[in-house]
Amino acid sequence: MSRITLSDLNTASAADFVAALANVVEYSPWIAEQVAGQRPFAGINDLYAALKAAIQSAEPDVQLALIRAHPDLADKTQRAAGLTVESNEEQNSAGLDRLSDAEYAAFERVNNAYRDKFGIPYIVCVRRHSKDSILRDFETRLRNIAKTETRRAIEEIGRISALRLDQLVIADDRLKVHGRLSTHVLDNHSGKPAPGIAVELVELASLGESRVIARAVTNDDGRTDQPLIGGRPLPIGRYELKFSVGKYYAERNVSMSDPPFLDEIPLRFAISEPEGHYHVPLLVTPWSYSTYRGS
Amino acid sequence: MSRITLSDLNTASAADFVAALANVVEYSPWIAEQVAGQRPFAGINDLYAALKAAIQSAEPDVQLALIRAHPDLADKTQRAAGLTVESNEEQNSAGLDRLSDAEYAAFERVNNAYRDKFGIPYIVCVRRHSKDSILRDFETRLRNIAKTETRRAIEEIGRISALRLDQLVIADDRLKVHGRLSTHVLDNHSGKPAPGIAVELVELASLGESRVIARAVTNDDGRTDQPLIGGRPLPIGRYELKFSVGKYYAERNVSMSDPPFLDEIPLRFAISEPEGHYHVPLLVTPWSYSTYRGS
Amino acid sequence: MSRITLSDLNTASAADFVAALANVVEYSPWIAEQVAGQRPFAGINDLYAALKAAIQSAEPDVQLALIRAHPDLADKTQRAAGLTVESNEEQNSAGLDRLSDAEYAAFERVNNAYRDKFGIPYIVCVRRHSKDSILRDFETRLRNIAKTETRRAIEEIGRISALRLDQLVIADDRLKVHGRLSTHVLDNHSGKPAPGIAVELVELASLGESRVIARAVTNDDGRTDQPLIGGRPLPIGRYELKFSVGKYYAERNVSMSDPPFLDEIPLRFAISEPEGHYHVPLLVTPWSYSTYRGS
Amino acid sequence: MSRITLSDLNTASAADFVAALANVVEYSPWIAEQVAGQRPFAGINDLYAALKAAIQSAEPDVQLALIRAHPDLADKTQRAAGLTVESNEEQNSAGLDRLSDAEYAAFERVNNAYRDKFGIPYIVCVRRHSKDSILRDFETRLRNIAKTETRRAIEEIGRISALRLDQLVIADDRLKVHGRLSTHVLDNHSGKPAPGIAVELVELASLGESRVIARAVTNDDGRTDQPLIGGRPLPIGRYELKFSVGKYYAERNVSMSDPPFLDEIPLRFAISEPEGHYHVPLLVTPWSYSTYRGS
Repeated sequence: MSRITLSDLNTASAADFVAALANVVEYSPWIAEQVAGQRPFAGINDLYAALKAAIQSAEPDVQLALIRAHPDLADKTQRAAGLTVESNEEQNSAGLDRLSDAEYAAFERVNNAYRDKFGIPYIVCVRRHSKDSILRDFETRLRNIAKTETRRAIEEIGRISALRLDQLVIADDRLKVHGRLSTHVLDNHSGKPAPGIAVELVELASLGESRVIARAVTNDDGRTDQPLIGGRPLPIGRYELKFSVGKYYAERNVSMSDPPFLDEIPLRFAISEPEGHYHVPLLVTPWSYSTYRGS
Repeated sequence: MSRITLSDLNTASAADFVAALANVVEYSPWIAEQVAGQRPFAGINDLYAALKAAIQSAEPDVQLALIRAHPDLADKTQRAAGLTVESNEEQNSAGLDRLSDAEYAAFERVNNAYRDKFGIPYIVCVRRHSKDSILRDFETRLRNIAKTETRRAIEEIGRISALRLDQLVIADDRLKVHGRLSTHVLDNHSGKPAPGIAVELVELASLGESRVIARAVTNDDGRTDQPLIGGRPLPIGRYELKFSVGKYYAERNVSMSDPPFLDEIPLRFAISEPEGHYHVPLLVTPWSYSTYRGS
Repeated sequence: MSRITLSDLNTASAADFVAALANVVEYSPWIAEQVAGQRPFAGINDLYAALKAAIQSAEPDVQLALIRAHPDLADKTQRAAGLTVESNEEQNSAGLDRLSDAEYAAFERVNNAYRDKFGIPYIVCVRRHSKDSILRDFETRLRNIAKTETRRAIEEIGRISALRLDQLVIADDRLKVHGRLSTHVLDNHSGKPAPGIAVELVELASLGESRVIARAVTNDDGRTDQPLIGGRPLPIGRYELKFSVGKYYAERNVSMSDPPFLDEIPLRFAISEPEGHYHVPLLVTPWSYSTYRGS
Repeated sequence: MSRITLSDLNTASAADFVAALANVVEYSPWIAEQVAGQRPFAGINDLYAALKAAIQSAEPDVQLALIRAHPDLADKTQRAAGLTVESNEEQNSAGLDRLSDAEYAAFERVNNAYRDKFGIPYIVCVRRHSKDSILRDFETRLRNIAKTETRRAIEEIGRISALRLDQLVIADDRLKVHGRLSTHVLDNHSGKPAPGIAVELVELASLGESRVIARAVTNDDGRTDQPLIGGRPLPIGRYELKFSVGKYYAERNVSMSDPPFLDEIPLRFAISEPEGHYHVPLLVTPWSYSTYRGS
């Protein structure tokens, strides 16, 4: 997607402004139209606030139409018929394009139950979730009353828009829509950071395949050059970080048992705050390790 | 198997003594015959030393016959034809009666390679191993020269006999053939041992299914009433201990994130000393944990 | 003090029974007289329960006389005039015989304030306290009303009696009057218990000299042969455990910086439950350590 | 001291250049004279390299004169007679102006022994040391042969000059003469950094008074706003970091024992690399803590 600067948006014709923001909210150019007159915006946070206010102050039937403009999640028929580029990418980011049979069945079941109960599609900001947490969110929200779900749908549309806006518009300020997952390996046997350790991040799935979503090798400071997840929200979900510690010590000729007491160390944890910073370090010797939620 | 006391063995007729010990060494009553005259034995360690000496001082061709009296490991044909009760139980204890196809193929391959190279069956004290470590031991020993392997086979026969003797004979002293795997959960959030935590011990397998080999719940002292493995050698191999920590804190209304940062905690480690004591504790809060090889 | 068995007490003449227990409660043989008729006692707990009941059911003026039979704490004049052997030993055990000037002044101040307010001596079971915690307890209790303090004094007399009884009488059962402080050094650098580490236990004092109250060396299991404090109540107070870790690693030629990053490691903690079990282990490498309240 | 930029030094007259650098090497303007002709210097590292080369290539008798131009350490007579401002500040920075009697006696003894053996004053870059480590260095160097000590003295003069140059000259590049000591408090009870914890850094002294050399309070990220030591070399020596943890948890109404199991936590460690980065964090709950050499 080609990006555009805020100042270009501020000085564009109203028509160009609307065209540029057309898909920030799914199939709903009227929202951009409403806020075009409020230009210039001092920053992207101001622009986003204006869009959000336009959505939230819309009449109930307009809001409902907006909600209904959204596709079902993981719906094969709709996907075949074609989603917006944005919807497609978002759904794929959570792995909704490669569900196991059990997962597909679970999604179909909750989609139908949701539509039956509320008459609207279930809307969630997919980039803030893993498959597992979408299904969990689904189950929770199915227990709500209709009014609550209309409000929740509007909220989630706001979150989706914020992320699309963040990807589209270049500005001096940033929307607070990104989280960060980082790690650090300290070798307490040598008293130094542990370089050269292979690290693998796996997103765990209850019904389908767990999948490796990041691979890295620790640098001289025992960290990874890039965060394991960064520049996007952290998908709510359960994860396993794996560290190849046996190989690291073997290469350094540290005396170990055979097989080594510790070899590949798994740290299993959950992410619940998509915009948070999760630091999950490993303090390790050939005979011990510890981890904690750091900062 | 009915057990017999050392004093009964000491006072039995030579024929009864030999009959009682017949299967301590696979199909080789001549060994018991040789040591019958050395009675009485002051303890089971003395009896075992005598048996071992008889084996080790036997002529090379007698040793070879002894080695050849042993079955192949995980050989379906031989199993169908019938093993001694002892061999059968030993092989089952390591899960050799329920191999995956990949494992079965691996065993067949190494068995054949071993017979081709050395002309004898591969002998290993199965109760000291997991499937994975047998395959690993196999690969290592395939690189030996024939003379080394004859010696290794005799050693392993000694270990097998020690375990059979330990199961058969009741004496005041004990053979040092047992190991112990224990755990302990300390709740550093409350400063107390953690009771009621479900613990699961999984034996990991590279080629086949990992299998749960023990389940327990921690008692008021944060320990399990029985060792996770005890009263037998610890099978060399890789393991995962799982602790249901999320449930424990949820039941105590400890403030956590949703989903909880820590829920089921896996500790992965290897055992390399079958007669050792492995203590693998968990020190835990809702936000941190550590483990180490304890004592 | 020579000890006596419960069965001897049970079969003694009433006069001998009373004589034997005379000093279990300071200057108050009437208590033993009251319970002599209830013999035989099945255990020391039963005997103690009877003594306690006798005290608690006594008339208020008798209780007050009992309270007034006790000396002031750390009172030089009374000490010069002579205390019972038991009182003397108890006060010495907490170091009340070697107070610093500041401590002596503090004790005199609170003793006087207490007598002025309540008209009775301040009574506390000294063996359950350090100097610091007596002063702290004093300050707290000075804020009570008179009725509360009479009750507290009787309670403390009960505790003192229990300890004197425990020292005097040999029985099959035990009074729950002892605590235990233990430690354990695990060397996470080698994956083994750490033997030969010098350990020192210091009782910290706010106003006077801190004093070493135990010295030990870890055995092959990384523990001390005897608990650091055992066979008595743990004095409430603040402590520092010191471990000579630098020497341990230097002797093993473990690579360290010069001076070693860790040398003598102090663990500072407080004891609040005299009858509890405090396990304060040290998990250590040349570059890291941790401790926790264990069990 | 007023500072000067490298470009000003590069363009100054030779006389001004020499005057500006006069005291970079104690009483030895000839060194600056020698390098003045090599200007312009591209950076402070180049300037320092030139000065160092001038010293190291000087004739032995010139080097000896240079060495003898230095005062004794902690010498009251010389201090009364007056040191250069630089020497005075350096000696004070290590506390040499306020020695205990025992320390003063120790310094006098080693100064005399050193002069007796080598005929030169003992020279050490004081800012890289604590009192204790100077005495330790002294003892070690007393065992050297004269030739080694001449070389060591020249080395230390180089280090002293580097630090004086670093303080005097403003340039785009920096000399690598600074270390850093930092800490971080993670509250594993709440899973968050611990703000508002009072931290005290004490330099430990074997013979004299230990002294508090830094005080700080942790910020919202659990760190201190400034490093505990920074912008200078870390004095080699033994330290204790103290954390007021009991107060922190009490303010948060966390359930604790009375007195709290952990209150003021001391971490004792040594610094051996003056130009290194020492990160000494505290991971803590009311019942456990750990530390390690971090990065």
